[in-house]
Amino acid sequence: MSTVIKSGTIVTADMSWKADVLIEGDVIVEIGEGLKGETELDATGCYVMPGGIDPHVHLEMPFMGTYSSDDFESGTRAGLAGGTTMVVDFCLPNPDGQGLLDALQMWDNKSTRANCDYSFHMAVTWWGEQIFDEMQTVVRDRGINTFKHFMAYKGALMVQDDEMFASFQRVGELGGIAMVHAENGDVVADLSARLLAEGNNGPEGHAYSRPPQVEGEAANRAIMIADMAGVPLYIVHVSCEEAHEAIRRARQQGKRVWGEPLIQHLTLDESEYFNQDWDHAARRVMSPPFRNAKHQESLWHGLMSGSLSVVATDHCAFTTDQKRYGVGDFTKIPNGTGGLEDRMPMLWTNGVGTGRLTPEEFVALTSTNIAKILNCYPRKGTIRVGSDADIVVWDPEKEKTITASSQQSAIDYNVFEGQHVKGLPRFTLTRGKVAVHDGEIRTEEGHGKFVKRAPNTPVNKALSTWKELTAPRPVKRSGIPASGV
Amino acid sequence: MSTVIKSGTIVTADMSWKADVLIEGDVIVEIGEGLKGETELDATGCYVMPGGIDPHVHLEMPFMGTYSSDDFESGTRAGLAGGTTMVVDFCLPNPDGQGLLDALQMWDNKSTRANCDYSFHMAVTWWGEQIFDEMQTVVRDRGINTFKHFMAYKGALMVQDDEMFASFQRVGELGGIAMVHAENGDVVADLSARLLAEGNNGPEGHAYSRPPQVEGEAANRAIMIADMAGVPLYIVHVSCEEAHEAIRRARQQGKRVWGEPLIQHLTLDESEYFNQDWDHAARRVMSPPFRNAKHQESLWHGLMSGSLSVVATDHCAFTTDQKRYGVGDFTKIPNGTGGLEDRMPMLWTNGVGTGRLTPEEFVALTSTNIAKILNCYPRKGTIRVGSDADIVVWDPEKEKTITASSQQSAIDYNVFEGQHVKGLPRFTLTRGKVAVHDGEIRTEEGHGKFVKRAPNTPVNKALSTWKELTAPRPVKRSGIPASGV
Amino acid sequence: MSTVIKSGTIVTADMSWKADVLIEGDVIVEIGEGLKGETELDATGCYVMPGGIDPHVHLEMPFMGTYSSDDFESGTRAGLAGGTTMVVDFCLPNPDGQGLLDALQMWDNKSTRANCDYSFHMAVTWWGEQIFDEMQTVVRDRGINTFKHFMAYKGALMVQDDEMFASFQRVGELGGIAMVHAENGDVVADLSARLLAEGNNGPEGHAYSRPPQVEGEAANRAIMIADMAGVPLYIVHVSCEEAHEAIRRARQQGKRVWGEPLIQHLTLDESEYFNQDWDHAARRVMSPPFRNAKHQESLWHGLMSGSLSVVATDHCAFTTDQKRYGVGDFTKIPNGTGGLEDRMPMLWTNGVGTGRLTPEEFVALTSTNIAKILNCYPRKGTIRVGSDADIVVWDPEKEKTITASSQQSAIDYNVFEGQHVKGLPRFTLTRGKVAVHDGEIRTEEGHGKFVKRAPNTPVNKALSTWKELTAPRPVKRSGIPASGV
Amino acid sequence: MSTVIKSGTIVTADMSWKADVLIEGDVIVEIGEGLKGETELDATGCYVMPGGIDPHVHLEMPFMGTYSSDDFESGTRAGLAGGTTMVVDFCLPNPDGQGLLDALQMWDNKSTRANCDYSFHMAVTWWGEQIFDEMQTVVRDRGINTFKHFMAYKGALMVQDDEMFASFQRVGELGGIAMVHAENGDVVADLSARLLAEGNNGPEGHAYSRPPQVEGEAANRAIMIADMAGVPLYIVHVSCEEAHEAIRRARQQGKRVWGEPLIQHLTLDESEYFNQDWDHAARRVMSPPFRNAKHQESLWHGLMSGSLSVVATDHCAFTTDQKRYGVGDFTKIPNGTGGLEDRMPMLWTNGVGTGRLTPEEFVALTSTNIAKILNCYPRKGTIRVGSDADIVVWDPEKEKTITASSQQSAIDYNVFEGQHVKGLPRFTLTRGKVAVHDGEIRTEEGHGKFVKRAPNTPVNKALSTWKELTAPRPVKRSGIPASGV
Repeated sequence: MSTVIKSGTIVTADMSWKADVLIEGDVIVEIGEGLKGETELDATGCYVMPGGIDPHVHLEMPFMGTYSSDDFESGTRAGLAGGTTMVVDFCLPNPDGQGLLDALQMWDNKSTRANCDYSFHMAVTWWGEQIFDEMQTVVRDRGINTFKHFMAYKGALMVQDDEMFASFQRVGELGGIAMVHAENGDVVADLSARLLAEGNNGPEGHAYSRPPQVEGEAANRAIMIADMAGVPLYIVHVSCEEAHEAIRRARQQGKRVWGEPLIQHLTLDESEYFNQDWDHAARRVMSPPFRNAKHQESLWHGLMSGSLSVVATDHCAFTTDQKRYGVGDFTKIPNGTGGLEDRMPMLWTNGVGTGRLTPEEFVALTSTNIAKILNCYPRKGTIRVGSDADIVVWDPEKEKTITASSQQSAIDYNVFEGQHVKGLPRFTLTRGKVAVHDGEIRTEEGHGKFVKRAPNTPVNKALSTWKELTAPRPVKRSGIPASGV
Repeated sequence: MSTVIKSGTIVTADMSWKADVLIEGDVIVEIGEGLKGETELDATGCYVMPGGIDPHVHLEMPFMGTYSSDDFESGTRAGLAGGTTMVVDFCLPNPDGQGLLDALQMWDNKSTRANCDYSFHMAVTWWGEQIFDEMQTVVRDRGINTFKHFMAYKGALMVQDDEMFASFQRVGELGGIAMVHAENGDVVADLSARLLAEGNNGPEGHAYSRPPQVEGEAANRAIMIADMAGVPLYIVHVSCEEAHEAIRRARQQGKRVWGEPLIQHLTLDESEYFNQDWDHAARRVMSPPFRNAKHQESLWHGLMSGSLSVVATDHCAFTTDQKRYGVGDFTKIPNGTGGLEDRMPMLWTNGVGTGRLTPEEFVALTSTNIAKILNCYPRKGTIRVGSDADIVVWDPEKEKTITASSQQSAIDYNVFEGQHVKGLPRFTLTRGKVAVHDGEIRTEEGHGKFVKRAPNTPVNKALSTWKELTAPRPVKRSGIPASGV
Repeated sequence: MSTVIKSGTIVTADMSWKADVLIEGDVIVEIGEGLKGETELDATGCYVMPGGIDPHVHLEMPFMGTYSSDDFESGTRAGLAGGTTMVVDFCLPNPDGQGLLDALQMWDNKSTRANCDYSFHMAVTWWGEQIFDEMQTVVRDRGINTFKHFMAYKGALMVQDDEMFASFQRVGELGGIAMVHAENGDVVADLSARLLAEGNNGPEGHAYSRPPQVEGEAANRAIMIADMAGVPLYIVHVSCEEAHEAIRRARQQGKRVWGEPLIQHLTLDESEYFNQDWDHAARRVMSPPFRNAKHQESLWHGLMSGSLSVVATDHCAFTTDQKRYGVGDFTKIPNGTGGLEDRMPMLWTNGVGTGRLTPEEFVALTSTNIAKILNCYPRKGTIRVGSDADIVVWDPEKEKTITASSQQSAIDYNVFEGQHVKGLPRFTLTRGKVAVHDGEIRTEEGHGKFVKRAPNTPVNKALSTWKELTAPRPVKRSGIPASGV
Repeated sequence: MSTVIKSGTIVTADMSWKADVLIEGDVIVEIGEGLKGETELDATGCYVMPGGIDPHVHLEMPFMGTYSSDDFESGTRAGLAGGTTMVVDFCLPNPDGQGLLDALQMWDNKSTRANCDYSFHMAVTWWGEQIFDEMQTVVRDRGINTFKHFMAYKGALMVQDDEMFASFQRVGELGGIAMVHAENGDVVADLSARLLAEGNNGPEGHAYSRPPQVEGEAANRAIMIADMAGVPLYIVHVSCEEAHEAIRRARQQGKRVWGEPLIQHLTLDESEYFNQDWDHAARRVMSPPFRNAKHQESLWHGLMSGSLSVVATDHCAFTTDQKRYGVGDFTKIPNGTGGLEDRMPMLWTNGVGTGRLTPEEFVALTSTNIAKILNCYPRKGTIRVGSDADIVVWDPEKEKTITASSQQSAIDYNVFEGQHVKGLPRFTLTRGKVAVHDGEIRTEEGHGKFVKRAPNTPVNKALSTWKELTAPRPVKRSGIPASGV
């Protein structure tokens, strides 16, 4: 069975050119003019781009005895509807001592229903010899080279500096990439308690408890620790100038650090939390919270200048009913919003549509950069002979107004409700299969496969070379005096 | 008994002018031309400046069963010899649960021998209800408004972020100033262990274990925590661009933060640790360690532009024999160097002598600024009718080469050995008493008195006003839904 | 005739304390408790502060065949009403070749009506041997040590880089201070022409023609040129983050640069230019124009951290009729707003009232800092025995709403119309004379005298020492080859 | 005639993989495993990379009645020997009124001897209607989209701000890229005159006359002007932190600016000018001059973090005899050094060899990035089917010590003399022709062709969209008053 995408303009992170794309089975087999295939998809007037990769999702995430409401089926369906063809979820071992491999088994089970390809990051939620040992297996046998650390969620997922330093060193040895959720958990916990004590228990209290500088501080700390450990660092959901500044400063010092803003932080702001409707505000509760225009501008500029590398969603969808667990106590509102279906159209509209980004930069930020960082490039992240046929045929003239009533996500609202977007998928292909056809959803549960990612990227190698070159060396001395003790 | 300082040029942080200074008893009683007194001190060709205040000394500090070798007698004698007329020591409660008042008793006992006036900072070395309660007594009854926190020295003096945040809030409530030793103690501990494991056990290992970014990170963290707690922050021994950058950035954001470089870091560099002579290197071991020219330049520029406020010494003198405790294991080398006698001439020579600083700025940096910050101005820190007669008559033409053999300090070496200085005291007066007379030491053991310092400085009040104005306020909502639980 | 100010709290840049102030003739003769004088002014509940110094005013400034409407009489009356006791005007030689001394004669004539003391800055509006020569006379004989250069107003006051560099070197030699109006005049001229050509001829076009980066660029350029010339630099009316950033960066490099924001830029924003009422918008036209909240925050933080040094007004008042010269062509709207009467209450209300500033910092920013920079301290700028009795007795509880109908200024509107201020003068004294008495104006035309200011401040001397120490030195070579020509 | 490069590892800016490369005629026709061709080049153990592009050379440049000594023949031969397969020269119209097309004719004539492909940037050395008009022809008919402006060389090539602004706007309209040589020419001229007057006439005077901040200022100014004109900007030979900082700051603000450091500034320092041998120092005279370690580190970090985009040479080779024109007057020393042959090995050795750069980043910095910026990608700058076969087969184990005696350049010295490099070309192919074969030079004079480059890159389009979106709009007002005039 072959499929040809006809008459479009291919856009990669590198360049744009008019050509057809021929697909056989899972992969692209030819790119050129005048190609033929059994099925033809008309891309006239469209951009043919690598499907989006969302490196930050939480599907069917366990939470307080229940789960986030989008699972691997509905979540990947939402993604495909918006042009995203690969997601990366976080495997979260129970901090009460669960092993990494044990947790991976749980994630393997959940992900069988995925409609598109996926991979996992492994979270280090506690520290001990078992974790140290299993990390090697995770990297070598399971194809996971990214390890997430939570600097927030005190009493739950949070790790201390010494644990983080030990883990970062281990990640470095294994040729992996360290990741962090950067917020100072001690300060957040104390601020939250103070706010509740003062009667500030509404959703806006969530925002008050996590000011930008609390995030900036943690980002800055993680960067130092990663550099001392000699490991590349990826900072998820960079929401503010303070964290971005820490990343910029690190990069200016030659450090290997990447930052990932979310589409939500780029386009929504903190005024949402001051909405008179408790539900409206609570539905927007996520960590870090939305910020203001100053921070949005900072993030956009980071995308334009290269100091920020990837746009993700942190998709973790809870229904309004679930959000209401936190009535009277904002710390009990489940953290998370949707976004998988809307990331690509929202970024195109606000990025390419305004002239902030070129189409090529759009591809880099939604797909190519992260494929390289995670080491699944060029299997994913580009349009190239031999690459997986994860493709979105993007119609820059197609428009809609975002609304929950027509979305794929399992939840009952959408944080982008009412936003008008221009630029939407005409077709989305996942490994050759047409999952979205001119607005019609044709996903296939279980089609998705796990994507293994090897360690020791070029960046790992370069960093190790530099660290070895500049390692501390003892002074050779003759005649050291006798000890004074 | 009256004393008149004749024919000099008075220099304050504000201005310079020719006038005589008349002293009766402890205080200045008149400033003007043609004054007469029972004793006349000839200040012709000299600057008449407020005596130096060194806000960072450790005299007779307990350490591993022994004590730092300069006690309140020899330490203050060294200070007076160099033009310093007041020191502030750190009261260090034993982290095993000693109370603040109990520790203060020990410091009271030691300090009775002081040759000049002194005050104490209180250290918070552990956290608990007793500390919380006694802090109020320390402020109200004992006249101490400054509380020091160690972010390094893991397993000993170090406090965790949540403890520090709790303590900072308490300091803020009491109208005090928070202080920190800023180094990430977790990282230092781990790096030290790694270095020792690799055979890097010489004094240079000390420097390797405490790179600039480890200090910068902690400074940045303390600044965030202080701002969240609403308390002014004073960062001791700022040695590097990274910490200075964090301070500059905070100040640019309107935060109330001061930085204190040491004369050692301004004038000595890390090459000292690579000296072939183990003793030479070990004698320079202090935390933070000396840095390189880039960092020195940063510190000087901070003094010139106002982003750094005070020059101190962290005087904590150990003999070569004591330093040798650390042969074979740099972590056992007692941390500390001398400097009390040399701070003023070294800063004058390298600051005023080169044109980096004006004489007025020299006074500000050695005396006035810290007197204001610590809230003992104008009793200390200026030449003014009614102020204590803590005065140095500074001869800008007097020269010497620094050498241990002629110093007042009790130790057997001097880290500035061989440095040529131009600009030295002709006379030093401590509360009216001439303690240094043209090179001759006439100190009087026990002359020094404790200087009480009240809380609630103008900066405290302004910061509190701002924090109250911008405090989180709950959204008023009608119709909050029922909880989902 | 003696006057005593009773029962107030004296506030200087240094400190605050309760004391009475005794004045005889022009000067303060005693400070202390229980003083008596022939006239008593009750300062109960008030702060007794040095009168404000506004270093940036244009009174009766020639413009397009007419003059700015506040002259030395009404302008200084407005100043005194608001607590300002000294103004510094700019002597502007005609760029068509008028000499400095000739221009000074014109300014001398205008200023005879002043109600309070004043001084002049000299502008260098063209370059030539005559200017070079007369600069020495201006410094030595006329007591003016500050020289202003316009980088904007192309075709009129603007000087080129090479002229500015030549002039800066001359100022440096003479021990003076260079000043600049920092905007890139070439770019402003071209943008203005483009806007007019596009039909953008309203007052908002003025703001469009002078974006922040056009100011930032010029500030940055002036700083470089001043440093190469070895002269301290004072940048007037710093309105934006871009210029402030350039100043901060320079100071961080140890350069001697000061920045002066205006009270207008601290408290008003660009939305004024978008007002539907042409008159409203045109009345706010000044250069640089008002900016937005981001820039305001930057300026406030500069005042708090010391990267900005002085708050001024650039008072240059034109009536609505005069403003209407620019109907149909914004480039013809006379540039300037009032502010002399409102600077002190507006800064107090928005600075001290919010906790951004301490009262001591308020005094520094409105009086002391500029007195030191301009070298008329301590005659002006402090409360001290021997200083001129330029004093404001400040009632922190006194309130009003600013309105043109009750102002001293000669113009028919006020850019702060409707602003509520808390903190106003109870009394203002100019050299001992009570000019404002509990709301009643008692100024005396011609009371004001010119204040001479000598060159070679401590900052000049320090900078010269450093520049000499680091001056380029030729390499000594033997055996230089023969020239190839 | 087909050629196959066998058994190597292809490295592009994107990725690395093992594959053979088949070439027919000028272009790459197939990439894959097991390819065959008439000629086989063994790339075992080698990297197969796109040939270097040096966007900054001056071959046979007219100077004071003579010419720089490397012409298009020897210059491109040197380039090929070092792995560079394309150069871009600057067409320099005589500022005395020569037209652009007239000058192009001269450059066309000189370049016929080139051994590899080349293109031109057009310089705008004066301003007038003729220039304005001819710019369109240059872009549309001659395939040149880059326009260089000199901010230095006062009295010769230098343009004023208003000319530059006018030209930048014209470049923007035409969809081109503005380029600048950033140094403040007024200040350089004056400093040079001062130095000569003081007897500082040796080559070190050249460095003294062009300090880093003089470059940083001009870079900052050009950035502002380009942004106001709405045109992307490329800054050549960025040598110092000050200019780099300006670029970083601009990029952080979302501006479209690229910086190009030279291999000389990355690896050589100012101490060269203090060499006792006049010839040694004079041979290194170029503008900007070499800087110190601080600046080198800044440039390397820029390459690592993406704030700097391209490494070039500014190759402009003068013989020692030519350099001696400047004996006794450094301003007469011809400005320029060689580098074409050494850029790639020096950058590989100091970049990839140390771990600062990955091999992929090396390709980006030497070839791909500039091909995209100049809009000749993917014809140049990558290994791709259909691209020109401009290829270097890079042997990472091949070593040599650089020495003038074995170089291709026509001059009698080499500024890298004695530097040891590891990593050298085994083969260099220019449009399919093997020009370097295992150390043997097989260039063919006249083989090189001019590369046309079209305007309106994606970056131009995006920037125009943004500028239109944010363009000033007039306020609609009713009731504008009558003019006051």
